[in-house]
Amino acid sequence: MPLNLEDLSFDLASLRAAYAAGTPVRAVIAEAMRRCASDAPHAFIHRLTDAEIEPYLAHLDGVDTASLPLYGVPFAIKDNIDLAHIPTTAGCPEYAYTPTQSAFLVQQLIAAGAVPLGKANLDQFATGLNGTRSPYGACRNAFNPDFVSGGSSSGSAVSVAKGWVSFSLGTDTAGSGRVPASFNNLIGLKPSLGLLSATGVVPACRSVDTVSIFALTAADAQAVLAVAAVPDEADAFSRAAKPFGVDFSAGPFRFGVPRPQDLNFFGNDAAIGLFAQSIERLHALGGTAVEIDLTPFLDAARLLYEGPWVAERYVAIQDFIEAQPEAVFPPVRTIIQGGKTKTAAEAFAASYKLKAFKRVCDAVWQDVDCLLTPTAGTIYRIVDMQADPIRLNSNLGHYTNFMNLLDYAAVAVPAGFQGSGDAQGLPWGVTLAAPAFKDVPLLRLADRFHRAQALSLGATSATLADTPAINTAELPKGSNTAGTVKVAVCG
Amino acid sequence: MPLNLEDLSFDLASLRAAYAAGTPVRAVIAEAMRRCASDAPHAFIHRLTDAEIEPYLAHLDGVDTASLPLYGVPFAIKDNIDLAHIPTTAGCPEYAYTPTQSAFLVQQLIAAGAVPLGKANLDQFATGLNGTRSPYGACRNAFNPDFVSGGSSSGSAVSVAKGWVSFSLGTDTAGSGRVPASFNNLIGLKPSLGLLSATGVVPACRSVDTVSIFALTAADAQAVLAVAAVPDEADAFSRAAKPFGVDFSAGPFRFGVPRPQDLNFFGNDAAIGLFAQSIERLHALGGTAVEIDLTPFLDAARLLYEGPWVAERYVAIQDFIEAQPEAVFPPVRTIIQGGKTKTAAEAFAASYKLKAFKRVCDAVWQDVDCLLTPTAGTIYRIVDMQADPIRLNSNLGHYTNFMNLLDYAAVAVPAGFQGSGDAQGLPWGVTLAAPAFKDVPLLRLADRFHRAQALSLGATSATLADTPAINTAELPKGSNTAGTVKVAVCG
Repeated sequence: MPLNLEDLSFDLASLRAAYAAGTPVRAVIAEAMRRCASDAPHAFIHRLTDAEIEPYLAHLDGVDTASLPLYGVPFAIKDNIDLAHIPTTAGCPEYAYTPTQSAFLVQQLIAAGAVPLGKANLDQFATGLNGTRSPYGACRNAFNPDFVSGGSSSGSAVSVAKGWVSFSLGTDTAGSGRVPASFNNLIGLKPSLGLLSATGVVPACRSVDTVSIFALTAADAQAVLAVAAVPDEADAFSRAAKPFGVDFSAGPFRFGVPRPQDLNFFGNDAAIGLFAQSIERLHALGGTAVEIDLTPFLDAARLLYEGPWVAERYVAIQDFIEAQPEAVFPPVRTIIQGGKTKTAAEAFAASYKLKAFKRVCDAVWQDVDCLLTPTAGTIYRIVDMQADPIRLNSNLGHYTNFMNLLDYAAVAVPAGFQGSGDAQGLPWGVTLAAPAFKDVPLLRLADRFHRAQALSLGATSATLADTPAINTAELPKGSNTAGTVKVAVCG
Repeated sequence: MPLNLEDLSFDLASLRAAYAAGTPVRAVIAEAMRRCASDAPHAFIHRLTDAEIEPYLAHLDGVDTASLPLYGVPFAIKDNIDLAHIPTTAGCPEYAYTPTQSAFLVQQLIAAGAVPLGKANLDQFATGLNGTRSPYGACRNAFNPDFVSGGSSSGSAVSVAKGWVSFSLGTDTAGSGRVPASFNNLIGLKPSLGLLSATGVVPACRSVDTVSIFALTAADAQAVLAVAAVPDEADAFSRAAKPFGVDFSAGPFRFGVPRPQDLNFFGNDAAIGLFAQSIERLHALGGTAVEIDLTPFLDAARLLYEGPWVAERYVAIQDFIEAQPEAVFPPVRTIIQGGKTKTAAEAFAASYKLKAFKRVCDAVWQDVDCLLTPTAGTIYRIVDMQADPIRLNSNLGHYTNFMNLLDYAAVAVPAGFQGSGDAQGLPWGVTLAAPAFKDVPLLRLADRFHRAQALSLGATSATLADTPAINTAELPKGSNTAGTVKVAVCG
């Protein structure tokens, strides 16, 4: 049965079916490249040429299509993550360098058969949550080019939402892997800190950075995580996955919801209704809502931007920003240079505060299995964002900034489309969060939540219902992400 | 059988026997107070009066002596740890405040029957390893008043070594709970970080501080730890004990020994032989020596004093030292004010380095169960220390500075007496170290190592052989410090 490649959805199940039916990988990748070439939204900083892609295709020559978990799967890489022989710009042309080898986790994906197609646009040095802070062009929303894409992993999200690639890598310090997922109708997995190697990744705030995964479905995100989550001896922040414990995703489960006074939709009335529906949807899936006080979480969040962690951004590019301050995008420069004047005393004092906040926040896990929050309360037009770049950007991080500081895992999941207001027709999303290493039950619950809605995949015409649900019988590859544990018990 | 109280050793076994034989607690405490009153070495900043002790004795009235694990046990408290209604000076009279309640862990000890007799002298603000940095007098070694006691927990060690109290509380950031143990022929337990609450303790470097325990025997240290190690909700750095895993203490076990080029005895030839004997002693106990490269440990250690952690000392007393800099002892002032100028960028950069060093250091635990090092290579005369206060103090921390930064547990244990040289007749000691939460097997091995020598207890005439060995059948109180674990395994 010859496939019409132009209509092929790039979700993993559809791709696998196409390969099983005999579709040549070179034909699929050529189609993907064709789609990527229509890059009106400024999703890419660099699209790979035929010659640059050839080694990855040659790697697949003569290989049984079923033998590699990501055989012939096209993907995009945020341009603060190294791909061998392609410049890494971090969104700053003057900063660019050309690595001789790919980031450790990119190597894992390529070895599993995935094919990199491009380096994706980003808020420069991963500083921002909106997607406009790039000299390569403000990245535009996959649904409406007047609106922001979300950032900092802007191009990573848009290239998946547009159906050009199957998945993409982003990074997430304060929400950069979740806000763009929400704005483009995608799954955005912000894994537990340390699960994905940071070797070959330009740091933002190194102690609270993680690589993230954008995908059309939770099943696809899980498949990518399973390949990518390999402990890395060279990365001091790398952590092997721990057992996730009780799998709450099948229900019954208890989920925390912020008190009404903790919620802020920043004037977006359409989002209020979508969040209420999301709570009802979790109820229908076997969940019991528990109202929680978000104050300590928001207090922790404030530390990230008002506190000393911004010094990590300064450390990351200290030599460069001292030598060429004018090369750094103005709002980004202002933020990063702010890190220069923080003192070690402030850093330690803030770390004590964070410890105390975490103690209070962690107590919530005695009451609930996961948290449900909006991913971002609202979305903005590009023109409005550029007119008020700091305040509006800050609004976008209201529910995301605290997650890595507190060492939680999170999955952004689509929650419908805005039926009225300025952003009518644009997607809106929620985030499910839980303690570190609960990535698997979070993805499973995200999949159930996702499938309880009749949604399209990203901004494509493919539908979620035509893809298979997450396979809960199949644990992600590697015993590290499994729910069992070997224990030696000695007296 | 009437006891001669003047001859009573205050090790716990002897005390328990005395109480079991009907000796009144008030008689024992009166004898302890009498001994404390002979404080030529400047061990105490404040000895409690009869009236101040009375409430603790009243607490024991009519109580079955066997019903409390520390019934009638006299102890001393380093004067940076709160005892209700007694000033806490931290070694600085201008800084003193009078707490209305005792430190959380002091409360545990008192509830278990222990009786506080005094607040012990210290290097001011716990800054130092030698014991001379106090306006209350340079604390003198329990064996020879011309030599330093070791610090910063100077008076805590000397009061136990002299046989005036059964045990004492110190604190240990860079060696303050171990170096004074070594210089006074004591067991010095530096527990895993977070096991002992820091509520009511004046911080030094809060992220790497721990309360420590001085005792005459390892069994006594274990008994005190069992009572004191109670998780504290109010202390964000408090951690519940984790299972210690395999108990290597009975042997066969593998122990790491620094390469010859990593060892530094700072000219003390007598110590060279004592360390060689210590290695042989562990061999005889079933250990196999494995030579290890100490370089990454020493690199981590250098971060503590040359790096930004000193900013924590500044944070701890920032308001005070800004208001009254002249009130701070000169070498201490120089050190603490050095923390003021460190930047947050330096703090984060150093934390990255430490992460990387820890990764390298931790690899040693794949080869060995524990480390054996000198506690301090040598000891100094007070007059020499005061003439060269920074460099000689730094020498004392060669083997101790890295331990808390790397999150290891350690026990300082006596290893004999120096038979020649300037410090002839003074004790010398080694430290056994292992990863966090291995306090129990470390104490058990320390006890075996200790008992393989015919030693006296501290500077008293009592002998170790007359006390019972550590009870390995009896785990410290509370399942938290036991070697078993409840595991829920879910697919």
